[in-house]
Amino acid sequence: MEFKDLIGKLDDLNFENLYQDDFLLTWDKSDEELEAVFVVADAIRELRENNKSAKIFDSGLGISIFRDNSTRTRFSYASACNLLGLEVQDLDEKKSQIAHGETLLETANMVSFMADVVGIRDDMYIGQGHEYQVEFAESVQRGYEEGTLNQRPTLVSLQCDRDHPTQMMADTLHFANYFDGLESLKGKKVALTWAYSPSYGKPLSCPQGGIALWSRLGMDVVLAHPEGYEVMEDIVEIAKKNAEESGGSFTVTNDMAEAFKDADIVYPKSWAPFAAMEKRTNLYSAGDFDGIDELEKELLKQNAEHKDWTVTEELMSTTKDGKALYCHPLPADITGVSTKEGEVEASVFDRYRKDLYQEASYKPYIIAAMIFLQKIKNPKAKLEELWNADTPRINK
Amino acid sequence: MEFKDLIGKLDDLNFENLYQDDFLLTWDKSDEELEAVFVVADAIRELRENNKSAKIFDSGLGISIFRDNSTRTRFSYASACNLLGLEVQDLDEKKSQIAHGETLLETANMVSFMADVVGIRDDMYIGQGHEYQVEFAESVQRGYEEGTLNQRPTLVSLQCDRDHPTQMMADTLHFANYFDGLESLKGKKVALTWAYSPSYGKPLSCPQGGIALWSRLGMDVVLAHPEGYEVMEDIVEIAKKNAEESGGSFTVTNDMAEAFKDADIVYPKSWAPFAAMEKRTNLYSAGDFDGIDELEKELLKQNAEHKDWTVTEELMSTTKDGKALYCHPLPADITGVSTKEGEVEASVFDRYRKDLYQEASYKPYIIAAMIFLQKIKNPKAKLEELWNADTPRINK
Amino acid sequence: MEFKDLIGKLDDLNFENLYQDDFLLTWDKSDEELEAVFVVADAIRELRENNKSAKIFDSGLGISIFRDNSTRTRFSYASACNLLGLEVQDLDEKKSQIAHGETLLETANMVSFMADVVGIRDDMYIGQGHEYQVEFAESVQRGYEEGTLNQRPTLVSLQCDRDHPTQMMADTLHFANYFDGLESLKGKKVALTWAYSPSYGKPLSCPQGGIALWSRLGMDVVLAHPEGYEVMEDIVEIAKKNAEESGGSFTVTNDMAEAFKDADIVYPKSWAPFAAMEKRTNLYSAGDFDGIDELEKELLKQNAEHKDWTVTEELMSTTKDGKALYCHPLPADITGVSTKEGEVEASVFDRYRKDLYQEASYKPYIIAAMIFLQKIKNPKAKLEELWNADTPRINK
Repeated sequence: MEFKDLIGKLDDLNFENLYQDDFLLTWDKSDEELEAVFVVADAIRELRENNKSAKIFDSGLGISIFRDNSTRTRFSYASACNLLGLEVQDLDEKKSQIAHGETLLETANMVSFMADVVGIRDDMYIGQGHEYQVEFAESVQRGYEEGTLNQRPTLVSLQCDRDHPTQMMADTLHFANYFDGLESLKGKKVALTWAYSPSYGKPLSCPQGGIALWSRLGMDVVLAHPEGYEVMEDIVEIAKKNAEESGGSFTVTNDMAEAFKDADIVYPKSWAPFAAMEKRTNLYSAGDFDGIDELEKELLKQNAEHKDWTVTEELMSTTKDGKALYCHPLPADITGVSTKEGEVEASVFDRYRKDLYQEASYKPYIIAAMIFLQKIKNPKAKLEELWNADTPRINK
Repeated sequence: MEFKDLIGKLDDLNFENLYQDDFLLTWDKSDEELEAVFVVADAIRELRENNKSAKIFDSGLGISIFRDNSTRTRFSYASACNLLGLEVQDLDEKKSQIAHGETLLETANMVSFMADVVGIRDDMYIGQGHEYQVEFAESVQRGYEEGTLNQRPTLVSLQCDRDHPTQMMADTLHFANYFDGLESLKGKKVALTWAYSPSYGKPLSCPQGGIALWSRLGMDVVLAHPEGYEVMEDIVEIAKKNAEESGGSFTVTNDMAEAFKDADIVYPKSWAPFAAMEKRTNLYSAGDFDGIDELEKELLKQNAEHKDWTVTEELMSTTKDGKALYCHPLPADITGVSTKEGEVEASVFDRYRKDLYQEASYKPYIIAAMIFLQKIKNPKAKLEELWNADTPRINK
Repeated sequence: MEFKDLIGKLDDLNFENLYQDDFLLTWDKSDEELEAVFVVADAIRELRENNKSAKIFDSGLGISIFRDNSTRTRFSYASACNLLGLEVQDLDEKKSQIAHGETLLETANMVSFMADVVGIRDDMYIGQGHEYQVEFAESVQRGYEEGTLNQRPTLVSLQCDRDHPTQMMADTLHFANYFDGLESLKGKKVALTWAYSPSYGKPLSCPQGGIALWSRLGMDVVLAHPEGYEVMEDIVEIAKKNAEESGGSFTVTNDMAEAFKDADIVYPKSWAPFAAMEKRTNLYSAGDFDGIDELEKELLKQNAEHKDWTVTEELMSTTKDGKALYCHPLPADITGVSTKEGEVEASVFDRYRKDLYQEASYKPYIIAAMIFLQKIKNPKAKLEELWNADTPRINK
């Protein structure tokens, strides 16, 4: 598609509320706002692939706060900030002076005097990750209103305990490009299923983010997991409501085979049961580390009862024409490669490896698009200006 | 004030010795040099608040060396470097190959081949922090003279054992803006007092930097602390001499109430006694870690004898019109918030919270101004050029 | 030399294969390719020393992977990237999610979506460092061919178990500038000798890289070490073959005095025996940490038998006219300074200190030149363009 036609899509969309706002949960955003993110992500990719600068900042900081290890998201965020002209400054809580009861209101303002955007990953403790992001957002809002901050940095959630918006939107862009656009996803069946992993405590943000987002696209969304691996009930309610409104469907089953049957897309990955994560959060708050160790053993034992929840060639053959698109946010636990028994057979993973990497490649652009839409009042005009300026990214 | 008028102030000031020099201690600088830093800090803030680029470097590194944890100063330094076009490169001594007896002459030169500025925090050991900075400065000077370094990076002290110039100057700019300019501070009473904290070994650089700097402004400076919490004697002498020359006054008392009485500004914070810090430095050099543990217990016990040195509403009511400006370099130990018993009552802290954050917001600009004046031969012309060029910081 | 004449040298050299390729081992490159790196390194230095911007990237990441501590190389790489316009993003394997059996194919692609260059140091384990770099290179090549990566980041080895190309080429540029150009090195005797150090497991990449590179320049290369401190046999073979082709010579001796006799250049430094490093690699793979501890003790004991392998004034007096150029990649173990007994007497080190620092100062330019030649199709034209554009690095 011509660049002009691509950005022309923005004319039909109402997304002005993204400007100067945060991006924390997909369900806070309208369908048109989400579509604007996809369009701008594609447009920024076009700029870069045509060796045109997408820089909109002459200086400025992109703060990152990773309260959990990260490679893919860390590099995606760094790439997005760099592409737009921001320098990443990591708030490493271990090297900081924050430990002694300082309020988040204070920390948030102290690091934000020259921050344009703040990316936060906080996914470990149920009931705390999203809340932390909201409190951070309120803190800089207050600082801005009080005049402490000359500009109000906007937030991008890099994963919380509820949603993982940059991941799910990158996945969705992959769906759209693999098939024939967002519209083409209508009526397609996507199976978001639990899968066995010998590790413990994997976040629920992916399955939750997936059901909430894909149910908006008119897809037939099936969530499958063993009994006991339920996700947050209120997000299940969101998915139900979305499905009704979009003309799609949303069902929950405890049968992996049922979910895979005739699916167009399968998205099998491990996660911890919500109830266990809640228990862990409480144990953690109480400083009960023996309790946490015991819980971990219990959970690994519980996981081990469901080793048959794994993606086999046989299972794949039951999908639509035997060739559903296999997806995963990576890294996957691959049987015989990264683990003895895991989420997926090596031959299945290998066949889709190229697609999986392609899927991951969208994340930097999704993040860049969120920042772009938060900072630029007239994104279409600015994208056009960048295209025409034709400043080379590499001055080859 | 119009930008033109603001930078016009530079015409009346002699500050040419700042060019290509380091900024380690405020008392190494003339009054006019300090005033130039304030003017340039305000001017750079004007540029940024008017969305004008303040970039003077196309490339170049701003080295940071933090020999102690830091959040505020780390982000302030990163912000200042980024705003001017430098990329921060942290010398993390844990990830480096420095540990085996390498000379500072060598380290300093090895990291400085493309460094334009080096920011150092080294505040833990009495008699070592400032000395380290001086030795670093001499090392790069020698490297420059010998032709090893094509340019001589200039230093900015981000705190040493004697002074904390970027903090104290940011605080002073806050005083000036809160009242009616630097001139208006003449005759005002500032109480720099010790306050109780349940923590140990807080640096003396703030009280020392405060008495040395504010005594130059014609202020009535009162230093108050319990017996045994003396600061360095030679800096007390500097304050005395400054007060005489400026027409202000400098007194020391062991009575917190006396210091607060009719004060225009109060600056209460905890610090360790100089004698104890000296003892700790010796124990540390001797590798006597049992001795350090014992000293820590002693000091915490000693602190606990002075829990009444805390900022209460009652005490605040004795200040000038009951409404002195309460200041703190942050983070403060707030009673009932960050600690059970601490430096200040929550209601007092809360009432001044907005002011305290404002105070902190000056630090990036103070640092940027120091760098600007060290690197630019004709700062007024360059500021004017940046203003007129009107290159947008965010290309909105 | 005029800039025009300097870059004019490129006209006579065939180096087109450097474009879009990696730089892992000097012996993978032709003589003319190496010469092009030296010319471009000098040219970039000229740009910087004349305050002219050498920026060719508007945005982009320079990934760094340090699997061992580093100061000099870390700062050299950061300086080179920054000078050209790239932002360094460190892949800190401790802060990443890589630990659980993820393939390098995946990691390499996941971090490279917006990477232009990847610098890797991996020097600890024999038979693994270079292999890791090759596998990384193949991984991104595959990602590029499969369309995962829009651009293929090129690699620069920042040291492996076999070679240390950026170090050795910086050293060689120092030789050339100290004497009278590369040509003048023909027939000069360089003694690359082992020296005593009380530390353990120093990499072999410097002696190996040195004999392989200097034997190409028509030099008389003497490798000297105690029995048992042999380097990799296949690299000895490379050196022999190179010496034959270049008209120089390559000999190995167990006599330090013989190596120093009439040498024009001496390069004495400690390293671990190849066989011991191989043993360590196997113990490490087997997780045999007791075995590693025992091996360490053995090695230190073995080292201690050769304390007489140290650079003394007496030994230096036996070199050509008593004044061979003393070189070292730094940091050196200096007797009485950084260690009780070490590689070199303090008076010798001090006399050559300035030269040693000069030697180190070439590394950022060597790295920048490698990147430049990997990214720019017509380097001569681009260097000329940068010179004429005259964009100030510091807008003074």
